[in-house]
Amino acid sequence: MRNILLTLAYDGRNYHGWQIQSNAISVQQVFQSALENIIGDKYNVKGCSRTDTGVHANMYCVNILTEHKIPAERLKNAMNRFLPKDIVVLSGMEAPLDFHARYSCKGKEYIYKIWNREERSPFLNDRALHYRYKLDEKMLDRAAKAFVGTHDFTSFCTLDKREKGDFTRTVKSFTVTRSGDMVEMRVEADGFLYNMVRIMVGTLLRVAQGKIKEDAIPDIIKAESRSAAGPTAPACGLYLNKVIY
Amino acid sequence: MRNILLTLAYDGRNYHGWQIQSNAISVQQVFQSALENIIGDKYNVKGCSRTDTGVHANMYCVNILTEHKIPAERLKNAMNRFLPKDIVVLSGMEAPLDFHARYSCKGKEYIYKIWNREERSPFLNDRALHYRYKLDEKMLDRAAKAFVGTHDFTSFCTLDKREKGDFTRTVKSFTVTRSGDMVEMRVEADGFLYNMVRIMVGTLLRVAQGKIKEDAIPDIIKAESRSAAGPTAPACGLYLNKVIY
Repeated sequence: MRNILLTLAYDGRNYHGWQIQSNAISVQQVFQSALENIIGDKYNVKGCSRTDTGVHANMYCVNILTEHKIPAERLKNAMNRFLPKDIVVLSGMEAPLDFHARYSCKGKEYIYKIWNREERSPFLNDRALHYRYKLDEKMLDRAAKAFVGTHDFTSFCTLDKREKGDFTRTVKSFTVTRSGDMVEMRVEADGFLYNMVRIMVGTLLRVAQGKIKEDAIPDIIKAESRSAAGPTAPACGLYLNKVIY
Repeated sequence: MRNILLTLAYDGRNYHGWQIQSNAISVQQVFQSALENIIGDKYNVKGCSRTDTGVHANMYCVNILTEHKIPAERLKNAMNRFLPKDIVVLSGMEAPLDFHARYSCKGKEYIYKIWNREERSPFLNDRALHYRYKLDEKMLDRAAKAFVGTHDFTSFCTLDKREKGDFTRTVKSFTVTRSGDMVEMRVEADGFLYNMVRIMVGTLLRVAQGKIKEDAIPDIIKAESRSAAGPTAPACGLYLNKVIY
């Protein structure tokens, strides 16, 4: 038995997230059918996380337990011939047998992209949030620092059957930067609750609008209530950017 | 009579270039039909240049002579409601009556984007050339400097009925830079011959492959023969980036 770690990137706009589901096309389904064309058997590939409909990945990890002898690098190349243009395998390598793309994960980084000018970009449809009103990225960067640290993030979680008891996560960094008309919010944590990044972004946009005070985020965290935070920002701006093992 | 200057940006992958033609959809056709919806009359909008099928624009200029009273800024906003998502009006302003998007143009800048890693990018299909083999951007930057200056660029022109007598152009700058896996070639000139940027890029890629020597570009220019240069690089990597008046 071998364990192969593949890293992928995908444009999520045409997919209903990573996870296989009935009646909707998912990245996992397309990925597994390419894999079955190459190494034969049926596989239930384990991915590093669920991603929602329309969310993108600059880096996404899966592991495949198999007895097939194909070298990992060659599997990567073969996959890239079978996969559609919006899903790519970036690398393939051997992993220890006990490695698991999801449970071995020690942290993740997400980027949220905001196209911040009055006119939309013809190149970023469904790939960034279009936000017309000028954002003060320096103020947002200061406000976002309140997320950093170990907190109960109940206020920043869409309650969902998938979530179990512990809502405590450690946010290692949260930065807001601008490059021309593009504002990027970048957040790294040991783990994320369901919709956590999108609610943090939605809350920062409320701060930008003056509807939530710049220094109110610690109180929103303390409230431990979803209704204390801002709305869930749209999926199209969200990119899983890094998976840390 | 007024003269309105609109600047646009568009993703060219779905269009057969700027210019109206029979039996193929063009940016101009889509643009003019949006314009006719707003200000009524038929217009033959003058664009700053032809662009080929699949070529993109970060900035493209048109001027519209009209007696309509709509403020330029409001025309911009109205156009953006009518236009499809891959064409955007970035700005609208009044221009002197003798301003002409094409004939008043003093120079242009193009960018050619090359996604330079073995694996393609799921985000850049038809938006950058995918080139698998590692490019030495510093060497290419040195080689490209030979294009700078006033030369007869016959070697870098697809002969075409559209071109008339003078093949002399002044290239003001040509730089090759890398940011991660993206290599960008950026060239500014007072004007460009048909396919000139794409042939210069194709020639630099031959230099990268060792098929043309790093210091051979002056001789290729002197040859004044299309066959001395490299092939025409694909349209998908080319962006009109700036129009100078």
